[in-house]
Amino acid sequence: MGTPIRAVIWNEFIHEQEHEAIRKIYPKGIHQVIAEALEKTGNFSVSTATLDQPEHGLSKELLENTQVLYWWGHIAHDKVQNEIVERVKQRVLEGMGLVVLHSGHYSKIFRSLMGTTCSLKWREAAEKERIWVIEPSHPIAQDLPVNEGGYFEIPHEEMYGERFEIPVPDELVFVSWFQGGEVFRSGCCWNRGAGRIFYFRPGHESYPTYYNTAVQKILVNAGYWAAERVKIQDRCPNSPALEPLPEPPAEFGQAGIVQNLEDIQ
Amino acid sequence: MGTPIRAVIWNEFIHEQEHEAIRKIYPKGIHQVIAEALEKTGNFSVSTATLDQPEHGLSKELLENTQVLYWWGHIAHDKVQNEIVERVKQRVLEGMGLVVLHSGHYSKIFRSLMGTTCSLKWREAAEKERIWVIEPSHPIAQDLPVNEGGYFEIPHEEMYGERFEIPVPDELVFVSWFQGGEVFRSGCCWNRGAGRIFYFRPGHESYPTYYNTAVQKILVNAGYWAAERVKIQDRCPNSPALEPLPEPPAEFGQAGIVQNLEDIQ
Amino acid sequence: MGTPIRAVIWNEFIHEQEHEAIRKIYPKGIHQVIAEALEKTGNFSVSTATLDQPEHGLSKELLENTQVLYWWGHIAHDKVQNEIVERVKQRVLEGMGLVVLHSGHYSKIFRSLMGTTCSLKWREAAEKERIWVIEPSHPIAQDLPVNEGGYFEIPHEEMYGERFEIPVPDELVFVSWFQGGEVFRSGCCWNRGAGRIFYFRPGHESYPTYYNTAVQKILVNAGYWAAERVKIQDRCPNSPALEPLPEPPAEFGQAGIVQNLEDIQ
Amino acid sequence: MGTPIRAVIWNEFIHEQEHEAIRKIYPKGIHQVIAEALEKTGNFSVSTATLDQPEHGLSKELLENTQVLYWWGHIAHDKVQNEIVERVKQRVLEGMGLVVLHSGHYSKIFRSLMGTTCSLKWREAAEKERIWVIEPSHPIAQDLPVNEGGYFEIPHEEMYGERFEIPVPDELVFVSWFQGGEVFRSGCCWNRGAGRIFYFRPGHESYPTYYNTAVQKILVNAGYWAAERVKIQDRCPNSPALEPLPEPPAEFGQAGIVQNLEDIQ
Repeated sequence: MGTPIRAVIWNEFIHEQEHEAIRKIYPKGIHQVIAEALEKTGNFSVSTATLDQPEHGLSKELLENTQVLYWWGHIAHDKVQNEIVERVKQRVLEGMGLVVLHSGHYSKIFRSLMGTTCSLKWREAAEKERIWVIEPSHPIAQDLPVNEGGYFEIPHEEMYGERFEIPVPDELVFVSWFQGGEVFRSGCCWNRGAGRIFYFRPGHESYPTYYNTAVQKILVNAGYWAAERVKIQDRCPNSPALEPLPEPPAEFGQAGIVQNLEDIQ
Repeated sequence: MGTPIRAVIWNEFIHEQEHEAIRKIYPKGIHQVIAEALEKTGNFSVSTATLDQPEHGLSKELLENTQVLYWWGHIAHDKVQNEIVERVKQRVLEGMGLVVLHSGHYSKIFRSLMGTTCSLKWREAAEKERIWVIEPSHPIAQDLPVNEGGYFEIPHEEMYGERFEIPVPDELVFVSWFQGGEVFRSGCCWNRGAGRIFYFRPGHESYPTYYNTAVQKILVNAGYWAAERVKIQDRCPNSPALEPLPEPPAEFGQAGIVQNLEDIQ
Repeated sequence: MGTPIRAVIWNEFIHEQEHEAIRKIYPKGIHQVIAEALEKTGNFSVSTATLDQPEHGLSKELLENTQVLYWWGHIAHDKVQNEIVERVKQRVLEGMGLVVLHSGHYSKIFRSLMGTTCSLKWREAAEKERIWVIEPSHPIAQDLPVNEGGYFEIPHEEMYGERFEIPVPDELVFVSWFQGGEVFRSGCCWNRGAGRIFYFRPGHESYPTYYNTAVQKILVNAGYWAAERVKIQDRCPNSPALEPLPEPPAEFGQAGIVQNLEDIQ
Repeated sequence: MGTPIRAVIWNEFIHEQEHEAIRKIYPKGIHQVIAEALEKTGNFSVSTATLDQPEHGLSKELLENTQVLYWWGHIAHDKVQNEIVERVKQRVLEGMGLVVLHSGHYSKIFRSLMGTTCSLKWREAAEKERIWVIEPSHPIAQDLPVNEGGYFEIPHEEMYGERFEIPVPDELVFVSWFQGGEVFRSGCCWNRGAGRIFYFRPGHESYPTYYNTAVQKILVNAGYWAAERVKIQDRCPNSPALEPLPEPPAEFGQAGIVQNLEDIQ
């Protein structure tokens, strides 16, 4: 794969510290399990960041050098500083990839990039989720350990159900079936600016979902797919004509108006 | 058409008051010309609102009863109060249509709904714009006074050029050719929540664009297309299972954790 | 609604004649039940056509005057003459709407317009199907008799499961949950030429699905949505320049080559 | 890049043999110039095929081992045997990539995969084409030798103009501006089955377009993007339930009907 992809796993990291039952599942935090899943491919250079660090661990320097950022948050979305959200957003629009996980659907960064509420139905009943591959030729679905029917199962998960209040995905890769009767668009891709965003539904903190081999492969593939490949600066330039233009009619050529407005737009 | 569509035309209304040359083109303001174009169809009930009014003329009561809002702004985007922007956004997500005009590409409301910078290239040279109909069967393109080649021209306009920093449109209806050498996605549709958004490029204040019959027909069609047809309230409900579920394993059934988290998400 | 929409319901009409159990459900054929559902709105002028008629009941004159065609077929797809398929296809590309029903996924006309195999998984087990509204603001989802959760149920249906081998829908309106564990993109929209195509999954002949009020409302809405609004003739015209062009360099101006090729493309 | 991508360049190869002026530009045929462009990256293993060969050079064995097929045709579309077209189509649906070049818009294979006429406007006037990058972060736009404005020019080309009668592209990468006044969606992506299709507009035989470095880079990138990554067999399987199902009501359980139909669908 050449140079490793520079990935950062961001985790709110509260449940694992406050609840014994969750610490048992993720003793070092969800972020560490995801980090290890990426690292063992040999194709990523991974670091982690958490809410309680200065700048939530997301300094300008770090983000500048990050090609793809994974985001797990749940009960402390409103504790993430707006300034850091804006910083992450600018990097996504410039080209950094963003992989939003599970309850991150309600994070400030995801809602800001989507422009919608990102609401959904939910239920915690430790029920079965069956994830169907809708686009088997999509890079994020490549080489998944799914059975020949084209799905894999997570035996116990939180339910998320439609209507998921998102813009129409640019690509829809996975759809979930839930034992309790719902469906959900579980793997969705969007482009925003030069950045690529992947939302992946599973991953409630109460279940060992991030140890699932299919889930890990999807997170790895998402990193390959979303990693920054081009950096674009925001600008809204006044651009000289590329072809010869006739003189405009006198009534439109009075420069006073135009010149007064030029620096405004 | 049954009951008239309740439309509101919002205009910043500054250029027309401050610049004699622009007042000559739009003596009562751009909003009045658009309002008249809608009214003369007999299918709209139109009112107008401007920046200088209390709440920018966009009270809760008015918006509650508005099915489609047209938005023209340019030099005073930053003077629009964030609270009003948020109010408009919530109504769009609930179902109200939004037609964003020309320099409105940089308005707070449009950028917030798109999630991107909405930057572009631009030039004021009074040049020719030729607008090509890319989807002739789209409702917004219906019955346009275009020639048989499938385009219409605006003799003098400001240029906007690609790369237009928007999410991929859900539907692309028009693409512009500019005499100076650029192209632009001039008519773009998006869904956000239950609301429909149409961006239409032409309409610089220095030119009599809003008197153009094809432009007027497009604005009328956009109103038909975007007008609210269903109102959806934002909610993220905890939903009981629709099918019988087995008891979860003991390790996931310890209700303490779950119950503590339930009111948080 | 002004002038009624001219709809034709096409039915293979074999099961109902050959199987007593199915005749009990649809004594006059599936087409008659759909025709009545449209007619009782007062907004359609409906006729029907069946496989055993001359030209399968789809004469040039009839199709020329049809704004939307509904298509139900199953065991006799290969008995539909290629010439008639081509005739229908040309009318769709010109602008006629097409609503493809259930096992019509494997019809010649649908496969030809999609360009793919349109394969899927299937099972006849009379199981429950729950249809979720993914885009509640889409015209085809308007005013459905769904409960507040945003779904409706069909108590007994054949199962169709993903991967459905279709091009990515231009709009995805419904997704089905099946009791046996599958999901399916049940309501899909595409544009082809000037025509609009809607595929709707439910409707196996062994079950009284077309009497369901939500299903009937969807078929009515699909007719409103797909009905031809503009007719476009296929042509690939040699088009004179709209702007002055310089003389081409001598090496490209030798007309011999160009003129020989002009009538070929 | 690991193992080279197995690419085949298919060319009608008539103009170059029949017209001296065109032979001067492409002495060994258009296919050889494209083949060399791919080969010099070191990432492709390339072979070529032409119309006049047995099976048009596209044997089952060759196609079975091809990951991406490039297609240039113009005056002899109707001479391509339907059987070979069907063979290519099946391989695309299984997963083989297809890059359709210029006048290949009217080839049987492209029209069959699109489901539309693929008509357009055209003019041979050796005019300037300026190709704008609409999605600079798309893999096919990566590392292009474009100037900072985000475009490149081809000094002399045939014009293709909208309305291009294609299904809405899954991704729109390039839009062309023509000196004579038209626009065109010049770089379009679609998924069909497991296959990826890229259409690229430039490349009229009368001009040395395939020597252009930006064009060559796009063809290379298209090969990386479209190359088969997963092979999917067509099947429409009867699938047993994944979850326990209740006994169906007696009236639907009479197996006679069901069993008679099972082998039909």
